[in-house]
Amino acid sequence: MHAYRTHNCAALRASDVGETVRLSGWVHRKRDHGGVLFIDLRDHYGITQIVADEDSPVIGELDKLRLESVVTIDGLVKARSAETVNPNLPTGEIEVFARAVTVQSRADELPLPVAGEQEYPEEIRLKYRFVDLRRETMHANIMLRSNVIASLRRRMIEQGFTEFQTPILGASSPEGARDYLVPSRLHPGRFYALPQAPQMFKQLLMVAGFDRYFQIAPCFRDEDLRADRSPEFYQLDFEMSFVTQEDVFNAIEPVLAGVFEEFSGGKTVTPAGEFPRIPYAETMLKYGTDKPDLRNPLVITDVTSHFETSGFGLFEKIVGSGGVVRVIPAPETHEKSRKFFDDMNDWARKEGFAGLGYVTCKGGEFGGPIAKNHGPENMQKIYDKLGLGENDGLFFAAGKEKDAVRLAGAARTRCAEELGLIEEGCFKFCWIVDFPMFEYDEEQKKVDFSHNPFSMPQGEMEALESQSPLEIKAWQYDIVCNGYELSSGAIRNHRPDIMYKAFEIAGYSREDVDANFSGMIEAFKLGAPPHGGSAPGIDRIVMLLADEPNIREVIAFPLNQKAQDLMMGAPSTVSLRQLRDVHIRLIEQPKPADAEKVATGGAGD
Amino acid sequence: MHAYRTHNCAALRASDVGETVRLSGWVHRKRDHGGVLFIDLRDHYGITQIVADEDSPVIGELDKLRLESVVTIDGLVKARSAETVNPNLPTGEIEVFARAVTVQSRADELPLPVAGEQEYPEEIRLKYRFVDLRRETMHANIMLRSNVIASLRRRMIEQGFTEFQTPILGASSPEGARDYLVPSRLHPGRFYALPQAPQMFKQLLMVAGFDRYFQIAPCFRDEDLRADRSPEFYQLDFEMSFVTQEDVFNAIEPVLAGVFEEFSGGKTVTPAGEFPRIPYAETMLKYGTDKPDLRNPLVITDVTSHFETSGFGLFEKIVGSGGVVRVIPAPETHEKSRKFFDDMNDWARKEGFAGLGYVTCKGGEFGGPIAKNHGPENMQKIYDKLGLGENDGLFFAAGKEKDAVRLAGAARTRCAEELGLIEEGCFKFCWIVDFPMFEYDEEQKKVDFSHNPFSMPQGEMEALESQSPLEIKAWQYDIVCNGYELSSGAIRNHRPDIMYKAFEIAGYSREDVDANFSGMIEAFKLGAPPHGGSAPGIDRIVMLLADEPNIREVIAFPLNQKAQDLMMGAPSTVSLRQLRDVHIRLIEQPKPADAEKVATGGAGD
Repeated sequence: MHAYRTHNCAALRASDVGETVRLSGWVHRKRDHGGVLFIDLRDHYGITQIVADEDSPVIGELDKLRLESVVTIDGLVKARSAETVNPNLPTGEIEVFARAVTVQSRADELPLPVAGEQEYPEEIRLKYRFVDLRRETMHANIMLRSNVIASLRRRMIEQGFTEFQTPILGASSPEGARDYLVPSRLHPGRFYALPQAPQMFKQLLMVAGFDRYFQIAPCFRDEDLRADRSPEFYQLDFEMSFVTQEDVFNAIEPVLAGVFEEFSGGKTVTPAGEFPRIPYAETMLKYGTDKPDLRNPLVITDVTSHFETSGFGLFEKIVGSGGVVRVIPAPETHEKSRKFFDDMNDWARKEGFAGLGYVTCKGGEFGGPIAKNHGPENMQKIYDKLGLGENDGLFFAAGKEKDAVRLAGAARTRCAEELGLIEEGCFKFCWIVDFPMFEYDEEQKKVDFSHNPFSMPQGEMEALESQSPLEIKAWQYDIVCNGYELSSGAIRNHRPDIMYKAFEIAGYSREDVDANFSGMIEAFKLGAPPHGGSAPGIDRIVMLLADEPNIREVIAFPLNQKAQDLMMGAPSTVSLRQLRDVHIRLIEQPKPADAEKVATGGAGD
Repeated sequence: MHAYRTHNCAALRASDVGETVRLSGWVHRKRDHGGVLFIDLRDHYGITQIVADEDSPVIGELDKLRLESVVTIDGLVKARSAETVNPNLPTGEIEVFARAVTVQSRADELPLPVAGEQEYPEEIRLKYRFVDLRRETMHANIMLRSNVIASLRRRMIEQGFTEFQTPILGASSPEGARDYLVPSRLHPGRFYALPQAPQMFKQLLMVAGFDRYFQIAPCFRDEDLRADRSPEFYQLDFEMSFVTQEDVFNAIEPVLAGVFEEFSGGKTVTPAGEFPRIPYAETMLKYGTDKPDLRNPLVITDVTSHFETSGFGLFEKIVGSGGVVRVIPAPETHEKSRKFFDDMNDWARKEGFAGLGYVTCKGGEFGGPIAKNHGPENMQKIYDKLGLGENDGLFFAAGKEKDAVRLAGAARTRCAEELGLIEEGCFKFCWIVDFPMFEYDEEQKKVDFSHNPFSMPQGEMEALESQSPLEIKAWQYDIVCNGYELSSGAIRNHRPDIMYKAFEIAGYSREDVDANFSGMIEAFKLGAPPHGGSAPGIDRIVMLLADEPNIREVIAFPLNQKAQDLMMGAPSTVSLRQLRDVHIRLIEQPKPADAEKVATGGAGD
C-alpha cells in the first residue's frame, strides 16, 4: 500500500464500499455526535468524511487533533445511510471508517480559520497566505488563474503562435511608468530595470524573423497601488508579422472568446468573429468613454443643433460658445419621483460637473425646466428623433465637448445602474479602433501624439504628407470587455522614414528621434517586416472570470497595497556587504540588518 | 488578396504551378545568372526562389535590393526544370516569377551576414541579435527552446501538475548565491530580491494544499559567469505532496524521457521507468563523480586490499596510511605506445595530481613499474577479478580517498575520450540517490550537513536518534544526463521536530534554526503535508538537445559574459531622480546620464 494514499479525497464512490483504503489530507471539520466522531478530510481534490466510533481504535487520537492537522487515515469504505447521503459532495455516498491514523503534521492554533471562509483582515490573510490559500474561494481562484493561463497558451499555440522568453534584467526606459531598478555588481553605477512590458523585445523578435510571438509575460511597474493594480502583473503579450489590423483581430478573437466561454460558468460571451469594432469618435459620442460597457443598453446622442436657439438660455450660451449638448435616455422612468432626477443632478455636482439637466416624461407629458423653456413641441422633435417613448426621461450633459463627453459617459453608467439596466450573465467584447494619431495639446499649444507615437498612421506616408494632422487616424486598437480595457495594441510603424515624419509633425527633430529611440530605429534599418500585436492583461481577465474586484484575490502570493510581502518579509533590509557589492549606499541610513537575521531562508534545488 | 501574403515561404508545391501568389519575406540570397535574377526569399517558415528575367517589369528594382531587405512579391508559380529542382527545399520544385514588388523595408549595410552563417565575434552577434537570430542555427535553436518548453508544459499537465506563478519581487535570503537586489521606493532602505529559485514558495504551495505544482520558473543569480551560466535562467520547478522519492521519479521520468525522445533527432534515450538509481557511494566508487556519464563504459574498481603488501612501496605506504588504490581499465590498448600511457600520467600531473600509475598488457604480458614490483601473478589476480583481457591496460589512482576518487573519475573520462569509447547518439539518464545527510567537516572539526539541510533524513526521527550521523542517508536525489547534473531534488523535511534535531546534530541550536528559518518552520507548524520535488534546468536541457556548449546559443536575448545587454544598453546609468526615488546613491558617483538620453525606448501596449 502506498505510504500516504490509495485514493485522493475526491475519489471514493458507492462502488468502493467494502474496500480498505488509505487517505491523506487536512482535518477540515470535526464533529462529535455523542460518541461518534466525524472528520471532513480535505485535500486538493476534495473532501471525504471519516467516521470513528467506540469500535475504532483511533477515536481518541482523532478526537485530540486540531483542525488543519495533516493525517493519513487507514480505513474501510462504508455506505452512508440514505438520510445521511450528501448529494452536494462527489464522495457524499460513502464515509471511511477509521482503523488507523498517522499524524503527518500537528497544527498549532490557527491565525485564521479555513472552513467556512469567515471574513478576515487582508493583512492576516496575506501574512498567513499558505493558510488563506486553503480556503475554498482562494483555492478556486488560483486554480482558475492557472487553468485560464494554460488555456490561453494552448489556444495561442493552436493559432500558430510560439512562446518566447524575453529578458527580465533589462534596460531602463525613459518612457512610461517608473521602473524597478536593479544595481549592477559588475558595472558600478549602472542599473538594470525590470520590464514594464516586453514591447521592444517582441518587436525585435519580429525584426529577427519569428512570425508569431506570444508570452505569458511578467511585467513590473513601480506605481502607486490600487485595488486593481499589482507591482508585478502578467500580460498575454503577442506580436505578428506581415499582418493588417484585421489579421490581429482574427487571430486573437478566438483565443479570448474561447477562454471566456470555457471559464465563464455559463455566462454568454461575444462570439469570435463578432466583436463589434467601434471607431474612437463613435464610442466617445455614444458611450462617453473609450472603454464602453456594452452590457449597458443606453446610448448617448448629440442634440446640440436642437439648442442653437432653444429658448433655454444656459444651453444656448453653451452651444453659442462652441459647446455641445448630449443626452442620455432614462427609459420607463415615468413612475420615478422627482427625487430620482434631482439625485442624479446632485451626484453629477459631487463628481465635479456643473450639473446634469433632465426632462421627465409621463404619458407624453414633459416635465422639468429644460422642457418648459424648450417647449413641448421641440422636445417631442427630439424624442421622435431619438425614438424615445412617452414614459422615458432624458438627461442632459452640456458644456465643452470634453467635459460633456465625460459627464455623459458617467451619467450613462449611473443611470443604467440605478435603473437596473446592466445586462447580467454576459461578457461583451468590442474593439475600439481608428484612434486619432495626433491631438492638439492645449497646454503646449501644439500638435502632439494622442496615444502611441509608434503606431502606424492609417495611409502611412501619404496620409502624413497630405492630410491635416488632426484628421489622421492610427492603426491602433483597444480591446474592451464589460467596460474594462484589457489591452491596447497597434500595427507598428516599422518605417524609419514614416517615423521621422510623424515625429516632425509632433514637433520633434530627426535628432530627437535618433537620440531617444535609436535602438528601434537602427533595427528597422536592417530589414523590418510590417508587424503588430497587443497584450491583454491576464490578471484582469481572471478578475473578470472570478468576479473579483481586487487583483490580490487572483494572485497566489501578492504584495499588499503597500507593496510588501508580509509572509516573507519583503522588502527587507540587507547587509552592508550586499550594498557594497553593488556599489550603492542608502540616502538615509537606517541600520542594515545582519544578513543572518532575515526571517526566512532555504536552500533551493 | 491579402496585403502581404497568400502563402508563406515554405508553402508552395508543384501542385500550385500556374497560381498567382503573393509572398513576403527577407532577401536571403541574390544571384544574377546573366540577365536572369534569382532571389531566395526567406521568412520564418522557409525559403522560396523568386526569379526575374527581362520579361519581368521589376527586375531592375529587385536587382537594386540589398540583402535582408523585406519585400512583398506578386508573381506566378512556375515549375522548375528537372535539372534545377532542389530536393533539399520543400519548395524546391517551383519558383515564383516576379511580376510586382513592394519594398516593405530597405536594409542598410549589414553588421553581420545572415545567409551562410559565417562565424562572427559574439559581441557583434549580441549587439545585433535581431540580425543574428535570423541565421539558420540560431533560429532553429530558439525554436527548439520554445518547443521544448511547450512540450515540458504539456507533459507536466498530463502528469496532473498545475502551473502557478510565484513572485519575482521577493525577499533576500541569506543562503546560496548572491541576490539581485531591487531598492524599494515606498520603503526607504529596504530591498526586494529576485528569486534564485522559487523554493520557499513551492513548498508553501504544498502547505497551502495544492497537490502538484510546476512552473517554468525564471531564476536569477548574481554569480560570475561561465559559458554554461546566465544571470537569468529557467528551471522546470516542481513539487508534489504526499509522495515518496519513488513517486517523484515516476512522475518526472516520463516527462524528461518524453521530451528528449521528441527532440533528440534520432538519438536513443533511457526509457522512462528505466533510469538507473545509483547510490552516492556507488557512483563515487565506480565513476569517481556524482555526475556520471553513463555513455562511458569504463568502470572504476577499488583494489586497495591487493596492495596492502604489494611490493610496490608507494602504494604500500598509501594504503598503510589509510589511502586507497582505484583502477581504471584501458581496454584493447596493446597497440598503444608507451607514450599514450606517459601522456596520461603527464596530464594527471598537470591537473594537480601526484600522477597516474599504469600497467600495460599485450597478449597477457604485463609492462610498467607497478607490474614489475607487484609481480605478474599478483597482477593476473587483479585482472582475473576485474575480468580484464590479455590486451587491456590499467590505470591506477592512489592516494587519500577524496583525491583518488577525483583522479579516478577524471582519468576514466579522459581515457574513454582518448580511446574513443564514449557512446555516441544517445542520452543516458540516471538518478543519484542515498546522499549522506551529514559529513565530517575537516576544517571545522565537526559534523555538518553534507548537502541540503532541509531534506528529510531516511528513517526520519528514529534514524537521527539511533544511527551514527555519518551513516544517515537523506531522501535526496540528483538527475544526471550524459554527465551533466540537470537538477538536485529531495523529499523535504516538513517536520519541525525532525528539523530541530537534524540541526542539533550539525551543531545548531533551536534558536539558530528559529532565527534563520522561522518562515518555513512556522508554516510547517500549521499543517504541512509530506512533500518533495526537483527543478531540472531548462537551459541545460536545451543545450544538450541542441548540442551547444554555450548557454547564450539557446537564449534569444542573453546578457553577455560580462552581464551586459549590448543591444539595449543594459545595465545603464539612470537619472539622479530615479536614484532619489528609491533612496539610494552611488558609492562612487560617475555622472548619471540624462534619463532622456538612453539608447532605446518605446511605449508599450
